Order: sequence, then structure tokens, then C-alpha cells
Amino acid sequence: MCELLGMSANVPTDICFSLSELMKHGGDAGPHGDGWGIALYEGQGCRSFHDAVPGSDSKISTLLQTYPIKSHIVISHIRQANRGRVCLENTHPFMRELWGRYWTFAHNGELKGIKKQKLSFYHPVGTTDSEYAFCWLLDKIRTKFAVRPRNPRTLWRFVNTLFLEMSQRGVFNVLMSDSQVLYCFCSTQLCWITRRAPFGKAVLLDSGLSIDFSKETTLNDIVTVVSTKKLTQENFWHTMAQHEFMVLNNGDHCLLSLGKA
Amino acid sequence: MCELLGMSANVPTDICFSLSELMKHGGDAGPHGDGWGIALYEGQGCRSFHDAVPGSDSKISTLLQTYPIKSHIVISHIRQANRGRVCLENTHPFMRELWGRYWTFAHNGELKGIKKQKLSFYHPVGTTDSEYAFCWLLDKIRTKFAVRPRNPRTLWRFVNTLFLEMSQRGVFNVLMSDSQVLYCFCSTQLCWITRRAPFGKAVLLDSGLSIDFSKETTLNDIVTVVSTKKLTQENFWHTMAQHEFMVLNNGDHCLLSLGKA
Repeated sequence: MCELLGMSANVPTDICFSLSELMKHGGDAGPHGDGWGIALYEGQGCRSFHDAVPGSDSKISTLLQTYPIKSHIVISHIRQANRGRVCLENTHPFMRELWGRYWTFAHNGELKGIKKQKLSFYHPVGTTDSEYAFCWLLDKIRTKFAVRPRNPRTLWRFVNTLFLEMSQRGVFNVLMSDSQVLYCFCSTQLCWITRRAPFGKAVLLDSGLSIDFSKETTLNDIVTVVSTKKLTQENFWHTMAQHEFMVLNNGDHCLLSLGKA
Repeated sequence: MCELLGMSANVPTDICFSLSELMKHGGDAGPHGDGWGIALYEGQGCRSFHDAVPGSDSKISTLLQTYPIKSHIVISHIRQANRGRVCLENTHPFMRELWGRYWTFAHNGELKGIKKQKLSFYHPVGTTDSEYAFCWLLDKIRTKFAVRPRNPRTLWRFVNTLFLEMSQRGVFNVLMSDSQVLYCFCSTQLCWITRRAPFGKAVLLDSGLSIDFSKETTLNDIVTVVSTKKLTQENFWHTMAQHEFMVLNNGDHCLLSLGKA
């Protein structure tokens, strides 16, 4: 199974601490050695880094764990390949442009029959069912809305409908961003933690590395981390329910919905 | 003025040597301190790295100059901003997907009135005229060919026509790739060098760094480097003529055309 890591924050925040734990799972403390990738938003811009080697062996991942790129939205993924061979074009997150914004997508799971769906605007470059699903989702959003809907909730609810539809095809744990919000959908496994004042200490579960967030933050910071597994010893991680959909904006929860597939 | 660097090779080759010279121009030996970026193709996959800080100060650029990522096509750009503020989303190369392939684009120059052109499929994320021009080009290609033309020359000639049309708007020195070939267009300044057996030594003009390519290559390697300025002391750099269009495939020239704008 692949692993997902996402972040939404109200101030540009680096993901180094959480990322170092995820990368340990990528071939070191975990079986996810088939590549990794990360997308980091800075305003409208988005950097992405991908490697088809295990995260624990990757020089780029080593750089990113020590080079604090400050972002308001991050999506990262370590891969244990099920469908699609191990190569650069099959590493998540995938990226496309819609309405003049970069959209990114990372998925954990398998989707039955998705490749039989017709695509029109967007086409996969690699051979994963995940990238195919992303293209299908963007096609549907683009067809429904020629321009971004004025009321953001109109878009969020439509994304929720599409995610529920997709989850009928199999395991669909997903992080997606349109550069404004972070969409999270739990099919089988996803959890989150929101950190805000008063900030405390945290210890990573596998590496034992600790951090005192009160020294790294201001009183107004709100940061939510979403992950396949609990990353730290803090006891306020929340487990998402099956078919739970969550929209994070500036670190805060602005839509929570428990749908029926 | 911005600077461009491109590479096309018949075997996966790293760009470290040439890149180190370009990055010296990015804020160190040159005025191009408004960000830099690079796209490196590996098969169908493409990695891109961007930084809104000078290339000479960038930790990512330092990593890339010592971490040999092997590619068959590379496009890099250091920016001296004229239109569009200095920020991540305005750094080249830009990337979009067309026909299930990643297309990348880097531009040096200014284009008059391009933003008045209507766009349909692709929309810019940043505010540069370069990204707008790229979206316009892809729109035109997509409208003309619903799928990739069987004969590659049909596509190349159409790209040539579009580049000539675009060059009527101003300075349009361009490197573009569709993951198969490297398209090069000279409006005012672009030169190239092809290295093949017997390989010799080369010395970078600004840094004085030298390399013996015979130790880094095999007899069958063909590597063409395209650049705004001559990068090494070798005397077989070729200066492109105004409106010259060149398509590089596997390091070799497969189309050369001197058009009239």
C-alpha cells in the first residue's frame, strides 16, 4: 500500500519534520520503495519533486528534509507499486492545469475498470490507474464548470460527489489540491491532526526525532497534517471514517461530509 | 535578458557541466537573478525544479550541479524579469500535458499584444507573456491535431509556422519539448554545439572548470547543447540565424529551417 501525507496551513510552513517520518517508510522502515513525490504550493506557484528510487535513498528527499520550503499546501506520496511499472511518470503527485491553477493529486488504492472510462481534455502520461482517475476527475470538473464557481462550496460538493462515485471502484484514499484548498477523502485509511496555540512538543513514532512547535510557530498559526498513518506520539490524531470527505483551507476544516457510496 | 540552456542526447546524459556555467550567470557572473528553472525528461516522465531566487544562491541548483540526473532532453532557464513579478509561478520552464505527453517551454524575449489573444484549452497560472504564449501555442496545436500526427514532420512544420507567427510580436528565442524532440527557435540569440566521437576536452568560459568528455562518454554518444551564449572555449559553437528553427532528436538535427517572419 502507498502512503499519503498532506498539509494545509494558514501561514507558509515547512513540512520537513513530517516528511522525514514519511521518507523513513519509503524503503527504510517501510515497504514503499517504488518512488516518491511531493508537490509544494507557494501562492499560485507549485514545485514538485519526484524520484523513482526509495525516498530513504533519494538525494532530493534528503535535501527537502533539511531545506525548509515554506508552503501553505503540500501533498506527498510514497509508492508501493500495484498497477503501472516503477518509473518517473508513474510517481505521484500528478499535476495538471485547470482554470489557470495547478491541480495536484495523490492516491492510495486500486480502482477497477477506471481505464475504460472515456477521457476528453486530460490524458495520462504514465500507466497508473491513479493518474487516469485524476484525468477523469478533472474532465468532469471542467465539463461541469467552464470557469471556477463563485461559491467555493459548489465546487467542493461536486468534488465530493465525484470522489464518492470513484470510491465505488475500489480503494480510494486521496489528497488533491487546486492551489486554494486541500481535498481529503478516506476510503479505508487516513487520519489528521490540527496543531494550533498553545503549541507543544511532538515525537516522531519511527525515528524518535522530536520538535518543540512552540519555538517554530506564532500564536496565530494553524497547521493541519493529514496522513495514512499517525506520524507522531501526540494523542489527538483523528481517524477519518469510511467515505469521509474533508476540505482544508488555511489549516482549518471548512467542509466535512460523511457520504454514502 | 534571460538565458536559455537546452540539451538533446541519444543516451541519458547529465547536464551538470553546462548547468554549472549557466547558474554562474544567474546572479553571480550575470544579472539573471530573478529565478531559474529546469525540466529534465526521463522517458515519458519529466522532473522540473524551480526557484524564485538566483540560481547561484539556490540550494536546489547546487544539488543539481552535483547530482547527475540522466536525461535525453533538458530545458533550463535563468530569468531576468521584464514582464511579470519575481515569483515561483513566473519561473520557466512551464509545463502542460497534451496528447498524454508533458510539454515544456522556456522563452527569452518580450511579446507585444500576446495577452489579447483568446485562449481556450490552456490558461496561464502566472502573469508572464511567455506562459501566455505557451498556452496559445498548445491551443493552436491541439485545435489543429486532435491526436499526434503520424508523420512527426507534419507536427514540426506546424510548430515552425506558429513560432514564426509568434516571432512577429517581438523577441522570441525559445526552447520547447514534447518529450520526444527539442524544438529550438532563434529570434535574436541562440547557439549550439554537437559533441560526438572523437570526444575531447572542454573548458567553461566563466568558471574555468574543465571536463574530458572522452572519459564520460561512449563512442556512440551524440549530445547537442543549445544555449543563449557560448558556454565553453570549444571553437565549434554554431550561431543560429534570425528565424532559424531547429528540431533535435536523440542529439541529432532532424529538421533545420530558415523561415521568414
